[in-house]
Amino acid sequence: MSELKNDRFLRALLRQPVDVTPVWMMRQAGRYLPEYRAVRSKAGDFMSVCTNPQLACEVTLQPLERFPLDAAILFSDILTIPDAMGLGLYFEEGEGPRFHKLADTVRAIEALPVIDTAQDLPYVLDAVRLIRRELNGSVPLIGFSGSPWTLATYMIEGGSSKDFAKIKTMLYTNPELLHVLLEKLAASVVNYLNAQIDAGAQAVQIFDTWGGALGDRAYREFSLQYMETIVRGLTREAEGRQVPVILFTKNGGGWLEAIADSGCDGIGVDWTQDIGAARRRVGQQVALQGNMDPAVLRAPTHVIEKEVAIILENFGAGEGHVFNLGHGITPDIDPNHAAAFIDAVHTLSVKYHQ
Amino acid sequence: MSELKNDRFLRALLRQPVDVTPVWMMRQAGRYLPEYRAVRSKAGDFMSVCTNPQLACEVTLQPLERFPLDAAILFSDILTIPDAMGLGLYFEEGEGPRFHKLADTVRAIEALPVIDTAQDLPYVLDAVRLIRRELNGSVPLIGFSGSPWTLATYMIEGGSSKDFAKIKTMLYTNPELLHVLLEKLAASVVNYLNAQIDAGAQAVQIFDTWGGALGDRAYREFSLQYMETIVRGLTREAEGRQVPVILFTKNGGGWLEAIADSGCDGIGVDWTQDIGAARRRVGQQVALQGNMDPAVLRAPTHVIEKEVAIILENFGAGEGHVFNLGHGITPDIDPNHAAAFIDAVHTLSVKYHQ
Repeated sequence: MSELKNDRFLRALLRQPVDVTPVWMMRQAGRYLPEYRAVRSKAGDFMSVCTNPQLACEVTLQPLERFPLDAAILFSDILTIPDAMGLGLYFEEGEGPRFHKLADTVRAIEALPVIDTAQDLPYVLDAVRLIRRELNGSVPLIGFSGSPWTLATYMIEGGSSKDFAKIKTMLYTNPELLHVLLEKLAASVVNYLNAQIDAGAQAVQIFDTWGGALGDRAYREFSLQYMETIVRGLTREAEGRQVPVILFTKNGGGWLEAIADSGCDGIGVDWTQDIGAARRRVGQQVALQGNMDPAVLRAPTHVIEKEVAIILENFGAGEGHVFNLGHGITPDIDPNHAAAFIDAVHTLSVKYHQ
Repeated sequence: MSELKNDRFLRALLRQPVDVTPVWMMRQAGRYLPEYRAVRSKAGDFMSVCTNPQLACEVTLQPLERFPLDAAILFSDILTIPDAMGLGLYFEEGEGPRFHKLADTVRAIEALPVIDTAQDLPYVLDAVRLIRRELNGSVPLIGFSGSPWTLATYMIEGGSSKDFAKIKTMLYTNPELLHVLLEKLAASVVNYLNAQIDAGAQAVQIFDTWGGALGDRAYREFSLQYMETIVRGLTREAEGRQVPVILFTKNGGGWLEAIADSGCDGIGVDWTQDIGAARRRVGQQVALQGNMDPAVLRAPTHVIEKEVAIILENFGAGEGHVFNLGHGITPDIDPNHAAAFIDAVHTLSVKYHQ
């Protein structure tokens, strides 16, 4: 592997000195880019891009050709694991993800295998290897997975959900069964992320999109506990470098201290939190990643610059900040606004690293 | 007016001693009750019940005939104010609220009046008077309104929203215009709640359903600031008693201290917070209302009782707790489970008030 030319992102996650605050955007390879839409319309559907390593590599690299981003993230879906477990993932136009089979009974859950990534999801590992080769050491590559709780919501509800009626009914009436499912998912995620690391991922992020829908105790027992299991099971060094782990629970601002205790290196913070207050709460324990409201990217560039400046100032001087949005960039954003955002982070953050 | 026989709810909000923890449920007059569904199907649609004082009174009282609740809440909709401002509220089956006109331009916002409740929403005041007469002093009646920010989301987006694209674009590109709208809404809410208090409401709650979608600074400037304006403008004593004010920002657990500083008497707390930790954060400043996950009501009654016991224990001994769900009861709940919930609060809370 060629030497890494820009390691700001990895250094910031380990709270090591950097010249400027590194920045990437969740969903940076996405529909706001016309070149992404072109690939998508040629490929047919979303999963056709995910399962084709050449196309996955192409769209992963698209935002890096436009913007001086400090990291690439594997283009894939969080639901590849339940798909590999046999549930049959598909996408209904305008409806989000769906499964042909659910994991909502004792029988269905007991029948689920723990996945073997090399055998069950070879296309993901092929994509990781190809992207690493094409990146040629320019920036690090982030691998990722959904959290066990978040994957379980889709597997039990059958798709996106508003109030998580079915999984919460299971949680409160048959918690043992839900734990069986979450254990299989945690073991699968460990296998999946370690395989991504072996294939070349230089950091990994766990997306806990729906942990914030849980009550305080339920979050700790049914979501955070399994992310801790995963963190303990991960390969933490590869190619002579540490492989940082980021946990991101959307609407998880109430649990920052508990998440910091998980053993992770960085916590993703959504835009509802003041990042300075968040930093005071976790101290030197972990790095923070975030947290501009993606909606700010709809505003004129001088507003984007002002919001970036405020977040940088609130975080303050010193290390441990990876700039990002508080959630994924939306399809309606003008790519020039994304460019202004990324430039503002680099330009305005110099003074905090002197 | 006849003397109030059960004033636990009002006393708890003022942190005065009570015999047991008072309890009511958000959306307690609702579709989970067959007698409510019967009235709805006879009346035709939701707004026909709201605008008919006899029917609004009937459904307000239904849950009190079944359960020993400690408060009644006016049956109405949070969107009566924008409707009275001339936007034309209607409900699309299975689609939620819609407006015929939006308040999304300078012209439309400048044309909006501040409402005069007696003239514009007489049916609400007639309902309040009728419910008070029918309650005959059994329990207090809660009046309510949506928060300015929450009302504005519907008026600008045209209905429910997932990412609040239009209103957030206005917030970040033309904040002055949004402030014009929010000022008119705050003045209208003051008029509306004071009219409800004059008509007989003995406490009021402001529902800030969507404040939790805002960034930290944006929440303080565009939602909380206007709730503070309202709290300052409210009649705080009527019939020789204090009229407590409750602010409820869903997903607002990060701002409890700031909400407590608004001058309100009670804060509604959703289920993502540990109520003991919330109490330690606000100290003696305000009462707390909440916070069981409504999903628990789907579980067997022994689970409901266990969850109630944990919340009571976490809040601990002493005053200032109104038990409630962390959000509205859902249509799929068995009324017997609601009964078990209410009985558990009364039975298990005795020891915390000795």
